[in-house]
Amino acid sequence: MSERELVVLGTASQAPTRYRNHNGYLLRWDGEGILFDPGEGTQRQMTFAGVSAAAVTHICITHFHGDHCLGLPGVVHRLAADQVPGPVPLHFPAEGAGFVEHLLHASLFEPAGRVVARPAGEGLAARLDGAATGASLLARRLDHGVPVLGWRVEELPGVRMVPERLAALGVAGPGVGELQRRGSLTVGGRTIGLAEVSETRPGQVFAFVMDTRPCPAALDLARGADLVVCEATFASEHADLAARYGHMTARDAGALAAEAGARSLVLTHFSQRYPDVDRLVAEARREFPDTVAARDLDRIPVPRRR
Amino acid sequence: MSERELVVLGTASQAPTRYRNHNGYLLRWDGEGILFDPGEGTQRQMTFAGVSAAAVTHICITHFHGDHCLGLPGVVHRLAADQVPGPVPLHFPAEGAGFVEHLLHASLFEPAGRVVARPAGEGLAARLDGAATGASLLARRLDHGVPVLGWRVEELPGVRMVPERLAALGVAGPGVGELQRRGSLTVGGRTIGLAEVSETRPGQVFAFVMDTRPCPAALDLARGADLVVCEATFASEHADLAARYGHMTARDAGALAAEAGARSLVLTHFSQRYPDVDRLVAEARREFPDTVAARDLDRIPVPRRR
Repeated sequence: MSERELVVLGTASQAPTRYRNHNGYLLRWDGEGILFDPGEGTQRQMTFAGVSAAAVTHICITHFHGDHCLGLPGVVHRLAADQVPGPVPLHFPAEGAGFVEHLLHASLFEPAGRVVARPAGEGLAARLDGAATGASLLARRLDHGVPVLGWRVEELPGVRMVPERLAALGVAGPGVGELQRRGSLTVGGRTIGLAEVSETRPGQVFAFVMDTRPCPAALDLARGADLVVCEATFASEHADLAARYGHMTARDAGALAAEAGARSLVLTHFSQRYPDVDRLVAEARREFPDTVAARDLDRIPVPRRR
Repeated sequence: MSERELVVLGTASQAPTRYRNHNGYLLRWDGEGILFDPGEGTQRQMTFAGVSAAAVTHICITHFHGDHCLGLPGVVHRLAADQVPGPVPLHFPAEGAGFVEHLLHASLFEPAGRVVARPAGEGLAARLDGAATGASLLARRLDHGVPVLGWRVEELPGVRMVPERLAALGVAGPGVGELQRRGSLTVGGRTIGLAEVSETRPGQVFAFVMDTRPCPAALDLARGADLVVCEATFASEHADLAARYGHMTARDAGALAAEAGARSLVLTHFSQRYPDVDRLVAEARREFPDTVAARDLDRIPVPRRR
């Protein structure tokens, strides 16, 4: 399988700190590179992370608060400077089309042909042709007081051979590969179909949940995901602020991952009031043990399906 | 005298590098803080430099290529987040008013009351009331193929007592201070006016020359300046590129400072093709010895008038 990993470019909410740039996340997925929420400074963070503009094949913006979008012009500049053959699809909540216009025409640079606007609502936003086994990019509306789309990358289901059934029907050795390639195989006069000896293998799933209050759509995005990136702006002690500003606490994020049956959780989008986010990780882990806090320039593998 | 210094926030042209952020320069001048050309990432560079948003009292943009302006939205966000009483005057070439609109409305953030647009042409852009002895902010049009304004901060002229004239007229001891305070003094029956024993002391001058080909207006900006910040995008060996793209070589910058009778020169806005800018400094020094290369987060004092 090709490498699938999250390259963390920035992890701060609202204001950057010495250690955390504004948001920015590149999901590398076979031949695709999906850049989520390029906050200010993302193009330089890409340099620090050793990520070239050519790696970016899609851009997804959750919403148009500045910390999630102000790095877009710089990224588009970089696509041009590095002569990346375009256009790169740019997905965003359709209500934000005016902001996209302003971001793309904020300087003398002419972005024509570098990106193509794909205003989105709920549902399928794109097929990811560069995914080795096919994948879909899906969106759900979240709950933040302004239009927000969370994102889900979902590999198409595959087929997994079941050794017990193969054995029972006498398929072995080179016959297994032949059956997989052709879809059927004749053994001892009987034609065996692929469906008889295989089962569906659900595809790998990545979810990107940000910014939102806990809500059913967030749960849908994260359901059965191998890797969930989730905002954890506040600690539980500031649950009142989270509710007021439409955010999640770290505990909310852990509860989401647990309820969704996810496999791993990455917390991010931290308020600068927490210089040390260990406490946020600790409270999320009480809900969902397989939790880490994103740090700028981390590379986090998407766990393989077993 | 209050502290007057240049805080270097970024020094890269076009694309940032690991070591150089996009442009950004804060001139601290008594109670004023004039932020020139906030490129992307300026707000975070301010954090690294220990500069608060409250230090910014004016913003000047030379032109609307992205590396000189894309950090504006973040800086304005920061003015709001830090509750800086506004509005901060924003000076820029009047032709770029549309870009200012886009930059200020590139996200859901509402900038009303944080900055006030002051479209500028040649001449006086503002009186700097926070300068201890008064100062003017002046603009000149430069030669870059698009509308560009270079900037000059000019302290109002002062008065300097001439010891020889004081001695010749018999003014000494407490009489000197009295003459300065009152404007006249009677000594031995003769009334002596301040003008008889003093001469005009030209004010301190700072010049900001960027981006431009060598041109007479650049020379006017730098004339007699104590500190000239000048773009030196290219080395002389790439003079053809400098001419084609409307830039200066380091040698051009040195020649400018020499011809202008400046006192010190800071080179910046380096092309990323020069990982080591020592050669640019060397070629500028052959024209003008008191030259340094700006590094991100440098603090460079404005030389005092002798």
